[in-house]
Amino acid sequence: MQVNVGIIGVGTVGSGTIEILEQQKVFFKEKLGLDIKIHSICAKTQEEFTPFNLPAVNKTTNAGDLCTNPDIDIIVEVAGGYEMPKEWILCALKHKKHIVTANKALLAKYGSLLFPLAAENNCALMFEAAVGGGIPVIRSLQETLVGNDIEGLACIINGTCNYILTQMTEKHAEFSDVLKEAQNLGYAETDPTFDIEGIDSAHKVALLASLSYGKYVDFEKMYVEGITKISQLDVEMAQSLGYAIKLLGIVGPGQGDEITASVYPALIHRQHQLASVNGVINAVYIKNSFAGPILLTGAGAGKLPTASSIVGDIVSIARQMQSSEQHPISLSFINKDNVQPLQSIDKLQTEYYIRIMAKDEPGVLARATTILAEHHISIKSIVQKGAEESELVPIIILTHKCSDKNIREALEKIDLLEVVSAPSNKLRFYS
Amino acid sequence: MQVNVGIIGVGTVGSGTIEILEQQKVFFKEKLGLDIKIHSICAKTQEEFTPFNLPAVNKTTNAGDLCTNPDIDIIVEVAGGYEMPKEWILCALKHKKHIVTANKALLAKYGSLLFPLAAENNCALMFEAAVGGGIPVIRSLQETLVGNDIEGLACIINGTCNYILTQMTEKHAEFSDVLKEAQNLGYAETDPTFDIEGIDSAHKVALLASLSYGKYVDFEKMYVEGITKISQLDVEMAQSLGYAIKLLGIVGPGQGDEITASVYPALIHRQHQLASVNGVINAVYIKNSFAGPILLTGAGAGKLPTASSIVGDIVSIARQMQSSEQHPISLSFINKDNVQPLQSIDKLQTEYYIRIMAKDEPGVLARATTILAEHHISIKSIVQKGAEESELVPIIILTHKCSDKNIREALEKIDLLEVVSAPSNKLRFYS
Repeated sequence: MQVNVGIIGVGTVGSGTIEILEQQKVFFKEKLGLDIKIHSICAKTQEEFTPFNLPAVNKTTNAGDLCTNPDIDIIVEVAGGYEMPKEWILCALKHKKHIVTANKALLAKYGSLLFPLAAENNCALMFEAAVGGGIPVIRSLQETLVGNDIEGLACIINGTCNYILTQMTEKHAEFSDVLKEAQNLGYAETDPTFDIEGIDSAHKVALLASLSYGKYVDFEKMYVEGITKISQLDVEMAQSLGYAIKLLGIVGPGQGDEITASVYPALIHRQHQLASVNGVINAVYIKNSFAGPILLTGAGAGKLPTASSIVGDIVSIARQMQSSEQHPISLSFINKDNVQPLQSIDKLQTEYYIRIMAKDEPGVLARATTILAEHHISIKSIVQKGAEESELVPIIILTHKCSDKNIREALEKIDLLEVVSAPSNKLRFYS
Repeated sequence: MQVNVGIIGVGTVGSGTIEILEQQKVFFKEKLGLDIKIHSICAKTQEEFTPFNLPAVNKTTNAGDLCTNPDIDIIVEVAGGYEMPKEWILCALKHKKHIVTANKALLAKYGSLLFPLAAENNCALMFEAAVGGGIPVIRSLQETLVGNDIEGLACIINGTCNYILTQMTEKHAEFSDVLKEAQNLGYAETDPTFDIEGIDSAHKVALLASLSYGKYVDFEKMYVEGITKISQLDVEMAQSLGYAIKLLGIVGPGQGDEITASVYPALIHRQHQLASVNGVINAVYIKNSFAGPILLTGAGAGKLPTASSIVGDIVSIARQMQSSEQHPISLSFINKDNVQPLQSIDKLQTEYYIRIMAKDEPGVLARATTILAEHHISIKSIVQKGAEESELVPIIILTHKCSDKNIREALEKIDLLEVVSAPSNKLRFYS
């Protein structure tokens, strides 16, 4: 049985997909009985086709040709962006084509439109590559763990941020310096906003939260905080306390029918398995009702890891197509009539790390702690570092559990004190 | 569509499977559209049925009734042992029933008979629960990573051994004391041979090696070494060198068309992700051609983790059955006409840790190192610990890469020296 694939986008991930499909063609045919053929590829300009030596493959700059072509069975969308890919996939689904995509931004934004349409048309819409690159996260949640209630997730799901935080730890460098180096090495984009502000992580966490709770999680309602405010001092202090700072995606139960789904940097104890996930590596820690906590770790991005997961999805669909009647796994529960209520970050109760940058004057501590007390924040310990060259003295305060809202309000007042000369920073603990 | 399940064996894993299927029945029906029903259960005696309140379920002590019953779609075999389960599964496959099993011993021994028969009858034979309990190992290898050549595996796949080695490290205790404690806690069997001699690990590694290389790997031809010879001193020395000792299953390329597939305790550098997998936790590290190294970690055994994977397999089969024509993943390549040649351990080239127990007399070191030199074993460093109470002086020698055969022959000669008064031990390094 021949399965025809159309690939929209021949950039990094698209060319990786072509490479693996070509290289494994004989294996798929001989060992799996699947004749998977690249039927067409689509790029923005003709010039982009130059590197590919694929004489038998149709090449077009019109994605619509692929989405409507009756000979194509599977559309692989790896073009990037939201709006055009949404239109292409809508069109392809209406033409009964299965979809494989690595586009987490698209799925976080338009999943509630696309997943129900896929189910309606009895088409698969697969996206293992969209979360955690080459790591088997989506399939593990949907298949191996299908008998479990997912009770929570914690994940390191953006390689750029994890690389930056790891370098800050290992090289004792400041955020801005490490970011520049990461940009030079190609680990961070020229405009790094999407990564360092936590948005990319949030797209992925929204998908994971939807799968975990069987409802649509609107990523725009999630609490999302990036890593730009973390200083070398914070990393160093965390380390001396026995913690690592990681940008975590966190999903878990909330009050009533609410769940929490957030992204923020947190202090995580060095003995937690996630604390030693370093560099560009990603990891997803899954708490569940029966299987016991599971940690999946690997390359979260990159040409071949991402393409590897895309090819895994293509093979899955091809196997399903061997059966005359198709019943792909339906994610039609991700729709706007089935919205998962999210708990406000205000209600979060956790321990906090607070850094106040004060002038080296008497009475600072008294004034700061008075404000904390007024906001019902109970202090666990205080570390006051002596002023070195500068006259700014960092005061590190660790709190007992208290509410996010109280901490925020207290810090706003503390920052107004005349003796406080730079914005304070707070970091949550994860346990 | 109703899917009828027959469960043979109602011990720990069987009762866990019943528990999850009952608890998730409504979820499977409402969310997945799968009506999965426990049709029959089978136990050795009627008394074993007492704990179960399942009035609508047939109960029998004759497994053959389940294997031939035309109403049953899926047989779950969780009885344990080899011979009877083999007969039941043969019978069930001939009656076109799908099989789910957690029985690694059975599959390692009779897989080459059962997998081809399953393919012949167009039946699934699934075993996620047999390797790594609740961890999604098998599905990740067969589905997410299907586009990759698997280039090697290293795994910690026996919880009993990992618990013992972890305790020896953390509590500075000797093997025999920790084993006794593990037996009291239920982490080790009364007869622990199967676990501590590496046989259970070998069963699992044989399956993983078969899946990785697409050929039948005969576990009886594998090199298998347990953890009984490891002393507290070895653990302590390894630690001081920056290594942990772990019982590893190792699969990788060999010379020509040979592969290596072995189980032995090895020194693994503390920075390797596997080194910090402690206690009863299992982990599988997968090297592959495209996805980048992947580490899967979680509960490797236990009632509910194992049952969780069994239920995942049942749901997979039920989903496939929704299609009128079935094409389960075929593992018919695991047959005796398609044997994977294994490389002899003699050819292994690695670095070694050698412990020689010598009398506190001059000249011991000279004699030992002369023998090593005669066997072309080049020494990297030597640590001689002073004799404490006893008159036995342990000499620790770390070697450069050399062959397993040479090391074995050299140690045999060294142990014959009059000044050597207890058997030497050697451990391989893993990198």
